[in-house]
Amino acid sequence: MASIVALLHGPDQRGLVARVSGWIFERGGNILHADQHRDREAGIFFQRVEWEPAPGSQSADTAAFLSFAAELGMTARVADSSRRTRVAIFVSKADHCFHDLVLRSRAGDYTADFSLVVSNHRDLASAAEGYGLLFKHVPITGDTKSAGEAAQLELLREHRIELVILARYMQVLSADFLERFGKPVINIHHSFLPAFAGGRPYHQAHSRGVKLIGATAHYATRDLDEGPIIQQDVARVTHRHNVDDLVRRGRDLEKTVLAQAVRWHLENRVLVYGNKTVVFD
Amino acid sequence: MASIVALLHGPDQRGLVARVSGWIFERGGNILHADQHRDREAGIFFQRVEWEPAPGSQSADTAAFLSFAAELGMTARVADSSRRTRVAIFVSKADHCFHDLVLRSRAGDYTADFSLVVSNHRDLASAAEGYGLLFKHVPITGDTKSAGEAAQLELLREHRIELVILARYMQVLSADFLERFGKPVINIHHSFLPAFAGGRPYHQAHSRGVKLIGATAHYATRDLDEGPIIQQDVARVTHRHNVDDLVRRGRDLEKTVLAQAVRWHLENRVLVYGNKTVVFD
Amino acid sequence: MASIVALLHGPDQRGLVARVSGWIFERGGNILHADQHRDREAGIFFQRVEWEPAPGSQSADTAAFLSFAAELGMTARVADSSRRTRVAIFVSKADHCFHDLVLRSRAGDYTADFSLVVSNHRDLASAAEGYGLLFKHVPITGDTKSAGEAAQLELLREHRIELVILARYMQVLSADFLERFGKPVINIHHSFLPAFAGGRPYHQAHSRGVKLIGATAHYATRDLDEGPIIQQDVARVTHRHNVDDLVRRGRDLEKTVLAQAVRWHLENRVLVYGNKTVVFD
Amino acid sequence: MASIVALLHGPDQRGLVARVSGWIFERGGNILHADQHRDREAGIFFQRVEWEPAPGSQSADTAAFLSFAAELGMTARVADSSRRTRVAIFVSKADHCFHDLVLRSRAGDYTADFSLVVSNHRDLASAAEGYGLLFKHVPITGDTKSAGEAAQLELLREHRIELVILARYMQVLSADFLERFGKPVINIHHSFLPAFAGGRPYHQAHSRGVKLIGATAHYATRDLDEGPIIQQDVARVTHRHNVDDLVRRGRDLEKTVLAQAVRWHLENRVLVYGNKTVVFD
Repeated sequence: MASIVALLHGPDQRGLVARVSGWIFERGGNILHADQHRDREAGIFFQRVEWEPAPGSQSADTAAFLSFAAELGMTARVADSSRRTRVAIFVSKADHCFHDLVLRSRAGDYTADFSLVVSNHRDLASAAEGYGLLFKHVPITGDTKSAGEAAQLELLREHRIELVILARYMQVLSADFLERFGKPVINIHHSFLPAFAGGRPYHQAHSRGVKLIGATAHYATRDLDEGPIIQQDVARVTHRHNVDDLVRRGRDLEKTVLAQAVRWHLENRVLVYGNKTVVFD
Repeated sequence: MASIVALLHGPDQRGLVARVSGWIFERGGNILHADQHRDREAGIFFQRVEWEPAPGSQSADTAAFLSFAAELGMTARVADSSRRTRVAIFVSKADHCFHDLVLRSRAGDYTADFSLVVSNHRDLASAAEGYGLLFKHVPITGDTKSAGEAAQLELLREHRIELVILARYMQVLSADFLERFGKPVINIHHSFLPAFAGGRPYHQAHSRGVKLIGATAHYATRDLDEGPIIQQDVARVTHRHNVDDLVRRGRDLEKTVLAQAVRWHLENRVLVYGNKTVVFD
Repeated sequence: MASIVALLHGPDQRGLVARVSGWIFERGGNILHADQHRDREAGIFFQRVEWEPAPGSQSADTAAFLSFAAELGMTARVADSSRRTRVAIFVSKADHCFHDLVLRSRAGDYTADFSLVVSNHRDLASAAEGYGLLFKHVPITGDTKSAGEAAQLELLREHRIELVILARYMQVLSADFLERFGKPVINIHHSFLPAFAGGRPYHQAHSRGVKLIGATAHYATRDLDEGPIIQQDVARVTHRHNVDDLVRRGRDLEKTVLAQAVRWHLENRVLVYGNKTVVFD
Repeated sequence: MASIVALLHGPDQRGLVARVSGWIFERGGNILHADQHRDREAGIFFQRVEWEPAPGSQSADTAAFLSFAAELGMTARVADSSRRTRVAIFVSKADHCFHDLVLRSRAGDYTADFSLVVSNHRDLASAAEGYGLLFKHVPITGDTKSAGEAAQLELLREHRIELVILARYMQVLSADFLERFGKPVINIHHSFLPAFAGGRPYHQAHSRGVKLIGATAHYATRDLDEGPIIQQDVARVTHRHNVDDLVRRGRDLEKTVLAQAVRWHLENRVLVYGNKTVVFD
């Protein structure tokens, strides 16, 4: 059953819920879910609304809604809930998030096609191919970073990728890459950001003696580890855990936090506003 | 700032969101929050909507909305969000939930007046009076249960009580009492229901060797420990914890679970449907 | 580095810690970990102690410790920490726990060889073989249950299996099977036991309207869902989750709870006493 | 029943468990609990051991154990488990941690006497006195900080205080104060340190858009918010929570985290090593 999902936000004003739901009703649509949020301090209205359009009017409604939202002074993004997003996974050597995402995809958890696996190492080539996924090795070193990123961008373009997931990909994407790609990139950072940003967060956590370790899924931005946070979780650790134990326990966190963030993103539940997210879960 | 909160549910039909929000908009109201849920299997629509009415039309809107909801075939409950609910707390000897609720109330967490404390023991009389609360001792024994409940009902009537909180009150309220009171009663059960219903749940949990203990806040119904669940939480325990440790750790669970359930109830966020709750949090 | 792990329990008596540690010290061993617990009500002493024996005395120490424990009136189990346990995984159609266990094994998390996969269906044959695991299809129907269990027992004997993991295996093992196998069997039940024992626990949970769902890993015994609990965990759900959502969310719980229980078992951290476990984590 | 608790740490060496337990056994003591930890990288051995001494030898054992530990090259701290610690609580205006600690104390959770309440404001004077506690108002301003701290130290000396709890005390204690007091000071910081150190952490958390907020109990040191962490916990928040909501939800975290840290400290379960803690729970 096809449905339309709209994410919109803009200056708060009286009657927005009524106007949006009235617009849908008049065109013969049936609202399945509608969730809204008001940031009273900033005076911003946020809404996610999902509806079944009248038979045959899916594409007309999509275009018309964008115009309607613009008239309301709102920024809107509209998606067809049945459309499969084309996804590329970037990996390095660690494979736990990679296997986890692919197995969830095969279990039918995601409305997405995992069309491409890109890595700066060859380690996961056979695992990817065992799943029937296209694997591309793009080496990245200090000298070749710029050429490597150009090759990556070419692959993303060629495969019409709409989302990149950094599944423990151990290279920093340049601001230039992010700008030229121009589509969302989700990263998993292995700490409870903003604590322990930067490299080797489990070593940092062990050294500081924290009692909880965390993982954070966020959109990648030009400011490393500073992008809008989508999901976070933590697990309890004690003095008995050495760095290797933190790494092992952290893998479970990284998997579930990244998988949840990807799921919310693919279901059009995440609205980025400034450097924060509104997650309509 | 006064606002109106409506909780409604009934047979699902096209256009409900639009009709409700349109009705409010036309009368000059401004929706602050609107949250809805559809139970697709049962074909039921649930909504909580909160709006600022046009100046001066609070009471007219309240009455008119009830008629409007009836026309839609919906069951509705409407409240003035600024109105303070009159609450009675029933206690026995344990005082942790009692202190916790009263201190939260004094901190301004609840739109409620704690008008009355009723107990089958005298232990908490001075604590209640130290907080400036009216304390009434109503002994209950096997022989006097019926007379005791009659006295309790008279107190509830006299003080126009709209909600009873059983804060570790160690007597079972009779079906007759609940029917004659006719208003909500929230109980805290010291286990993760439906596990360990009945008496001495921490002893049961210890005996079974569970690795988590829980607490459950629910509306009291004539079927003991079977009422609609509002909130639950758990805490981890190990073989090192004896029954006394479970009791001590459980106190923290009981306090936070009961406090949260009471808060949701007072904010008109809990809609009872069949033997379950929809909590619009 | 080889080490010996002993799990012992028996009537409490003065000086047990000193006697055990003294015995190890005198034989030139070096204690790496020692953890003990006293059940004061029952008067039972429990201990897990791990030590490096003097060079060359691993097997002599192992035998001698068993005699020594018997002199103390204690029941003991002694293991070589470097020895790999031979494991069989029983599956049906659901594959999430299966993939999870195998991927953890390949990541080096377990001191175990997954020597055999047994299923009453053929669905996971190619997945198992893709991992290089031996897969055996043993159909079980009402009529053939007894013959099927005989075939399973023969496979376990042939492959010298020391632990069976029921990774969402949807058949009940008979009391006769468990007795004849005579070694540990770990099961994952998809609820927070003792709540929702028996079949279709997610349906039961949805019907009761609980606010948390759980999973429980326990040793299988002749009393279904009543065996000693090793690990449990829960996840929060709301009225928005239908049964399918509970199933999907439950999969993550089942994976992590089962994986943790298996890990503790393989590290000789679980001591069964009566119908409960002492987990030295 | 009197018992002795020793916390010791020092260079790891063969036979430490045997030597400590043997020493206790030879003097007629009975070990109730013994828990040890090895930091293999640093080569440090940590132990908490609790024993019942032979009748009449409590004080002799205490002194003798300190000598014995010194012979082993270990740093030791020895306490009589039945001895009540004399505690001062420092508060400002917020009262939630204050009430929580006092109510737990009255419920018998702590082997401690809350002998003194010190505040830079008068707001909690009547609450403290209502509990029968001695309340002292010591104003602190930029100009009078040094004189104020001198007055505080004099109070701590006069009342022979052994532990200071900063229960949302909103002044920074100077390095000079900490050095002159020379005994433990436990602080509750309202964030998941090291994230959001410094002032107004809930505002920082809201601004960064984190999905979990936290609280951290730690020993106060001259480096603000950098002292050894005893306990931490977190709670989930969403875009729906404004700063006031974070403050309100944070209060529950602050109460339970501080209460747990205080309990562990009073039970002699916390061993500080470098800038970290070993908590024998």
